[in-house]
Amino acid sequence: MNFNPVEILGLIAAVFTTSAFLPQVYKTWRSRSAKNLSLTMYLVFFTGVMMWMVYGFLIDSLAVILANIVTGFLTLILIYFKIRYKD
Amino acid sequence: MNFNPVEILGLIAAVFTTSAFLPQVYKTWRSRSAKNLSLTMYLVFFTGVMMWMVYGFLIDSLAVILANIVTGFLTLILIYFKIRYKD
Repeated sequence: MNFNPVEILGLIAAVFTTSAFLPQVYKTWRSRSAKNLSLTMYLVFFTGVMMWMVYGFLIDSLAVILANIVTGFLTLILIYFKIRYKD
Repeated sequence: MNFNPVEILGLIAAVFTTSAFLPQVYKTWRSRSAKNLSLTMYLVFFTGVMMWMVYGFLIDSLAVILANIVTGFLTLILIYFKIRYKD
């Protein structure tokens, strides 16, 4: 893993795209409603995120690895909410 | 741009994470409602996606570039819906 400017840009991008899920997780948790959220979207998305994580390891990119581990975790929470708040 | 198995994995991951947005775009368009969608999430996410696109160019990864151009476009559509269906 190297820490050149390019990798730092990737890490900053990672912070944005992963933290972007936080308002959605918070909003869904607060409203106890996931009606507008598409379960299909989050299942397909989760599968892709896992593949990106493997891709990150293969190209030795810490940014891609970290981004997808965190995004995967947040996506799992939204999938849990979607199933739990069956409305 | 090289087309080795690693890059192909990245392209498949890209298809999953980008197409994952389609059900959400369709659901929001059909229901004319974006109440549960978080505008903050999509704005922060869009910013991150643009940075990932630049990162993709810098590490010469077609998968990262393509994934983020398409995801960026779909995210813009959701942002448009969120603003238009002010409910």
